[in-house]
Amino acid sequence: MSDAARTSVLPVRVEFGHCDPAGIVWYPNFYEWFDAASHRLAEQAGVGLHALRAQGFLGLPLMQTGSTYHRPTRFGDEVEVHSRVVAFERRSFRVEHRILCGDELRVEGFELRFLGQPHPDDPQRLRAADLPESFRAAFGFA
Amino acid sequence: MSDAARTSVLPVRVEFGHCDPAGIVWYPNFYEWFDAASHRLAEQAGVGLHALRAQGFLGLPLMQTGSTYHRPTRFGDEVEVHSRVVAFERRSFRVEHRILCGDELRVEGFELRFLGQPHPDDPQRLRAADLPESFRAAFGFA
Amino acid sequence: MSDAARTSVLPVRVEFGHCDPAGIVWYPNFYEWFDAASHRLAEQAGVGLHALRAQGFLGLPLMQTGSTYHRPTRFGDEVEVHSRVVAFERRSFRVEHRILCGDELRVEGFELRFLGQPHPDDPQRLRAADLPESFRAAFGFA
Amino acid sequence: MSDAARTSVLPVRVEFGHCDPAGIVWYPNFYEWFDAASHRLAEQAGVGLHALRAQGFLGLPLMQTGSTYHRPTRFGDEVEVHSRVVAFERRSFRVEHRILCGDELRVEGFELRFLGQPHPDDPQRLRAADLPESFRAAFGFA
Repeated sequence: MSDAARTSVLPVRVEFGHCDPAGIVWYPNFYEWFDAASHRLAEQAGVGLHALRAQGFLGLPLMQTGSTYHRPTRFGDEVEVHSRVVAFERRSFRVEHRILCGDELRVEGFELRFLGQPHPDDPQRLRAADLPESFRAAFGFA
Repeated sequence: MSDAARTSVLPVRVEFGHCDPAGIVWYPNFYEWFDAASHRLAEQAGVGLHALRAQGFLGLPLMQTGSTYHRPTRFGDEVEVHSRVVAFERRSFRVEHRILCGDELRVEGFELRFLGQPHPDDPQRLRAADLPESFRAAFGFA
Repeated sequence: MSDAARTSVLPVRVEFGHCDPAGIVWYPNFYEWFDAASHRLAEQAGVGLHALRAQGFLGLPLMQTGSTYHRPTRFGDEVEVHSRVVAFERRSFRVEHRILCGDELRVEGFELRFLGQPHPDDPQRLRAADLPESFRAAFGFA
Repeated sequence: MSDAARTSVLPVRVEFGHCDPAGIVWYPNFYEWFDAASHRLAEQAGVGLHALRAQGFLGLPLMQTGSTYHRPTRFGDEVEVHSRVVAFERRSFRVEHRILCGDELRVEGFELRFLGQPHPDDPQRLRAADLPESFRAAFGFA
């Protein structure tokens, strides 16, 4: 699978309500888009939330997130969130996101996620499952 | 029960991120505060979400909402959301909200809610339950 | 101008993060989409925010909003917000929004907006301008 | 100045609408609270947004943010965001945030911010100002 095939692209039009009194995107919105992009990427790979739940998993919760802001983004900008799984550990995987406006890189970010399963001792708690081969393969990793 | 006893008061400090490029509160935030205020009001009356779920109900979904904006609200304003149940129908009830900054009325709004129960034919759907006497009584209605 | 020509259509994919613990769209999100839809509608009519500001106006603030929820909307639903200006007063206009999933009407709402100009006595305050003929004409009203 | 004196504490009650279909806080909300906490911290130090603007600065934009999620947070939890400036560079400073529920650490995060001034060549752009001594001193740094 090529890198392009593994990448999801989420188009976002920056709305008035995404912007703060300084007239630029209020930064928590970038994370909202990252989350939407990761769900889209998982679905595109055949391991979206509905599929995961049908297998008894609870979803793809977060362990860590972060991002770097290169240039301000404003109302009316048409951006794209390019997202790709870049690494797997035994019980976590890393998604990288790049927000582009045309060719210009505006924001870079990542999410470290795991595959949630109910904790055997307490259904209120979550436990990170060992990532199945099929899950890695869905994102093009051998 | 007096009107004052039936009223919940939710203090909200208006944050930078609540405001839009015009420098005033972006209006969907007012509805976010109404929703929080209604949950607080229900909890204060002993029929909060956890209590309702323990009785097999699904929550307090919305049928209708609305609001009127009297004066702009800005970053740094300290407001209060005053909320009260003002009317019951057989299967719905109406919450009224007033957002005050000091004595000044900024926003008035309402929510028409019902008591959700699983639909007998389809657990994905919601049905409006007849409101039990105990539910009305919790909000001070005979 | 036909009704269809006056209508803007904003497609929205319902994301995981739009939904609440009951698994349905948390209602303030509908107002976020209404606001985005109105900005799109105004832009499509040639009176978007950038154009208005170039004429010395401050934007299209809200006097009143409301909505009615017909059926629940869930993660993964692909909906459309259909928006149209339906009435003008001297200093306000009413936008109506319908959220459809396929042919199914999920939510109906409205926004009553005005054309904001700086208040002559206090630049912090807003005043409702008389709506110019050209503004009405932009939305297909004689 | 002691560490305690330099720390701001923002209490947050976790609302229904902060939570996602998995019943836990949807993570962009943590960043919303970080942002509110940083504004509070700056205000407490006498360099809040209004004070900065009076000096010709544009605010405290972000260069980088990140966070680590230790344990899930749910509707009804009463948490506190403890925030402190931990380091200064010539043109940036780092705020650290810890979200606690009682004694339990739920989330750790940081924001790298700068002091924004208008770019001399283009008022639409932002430039990072050299941080004045008075700004460092406001947060208890010599």
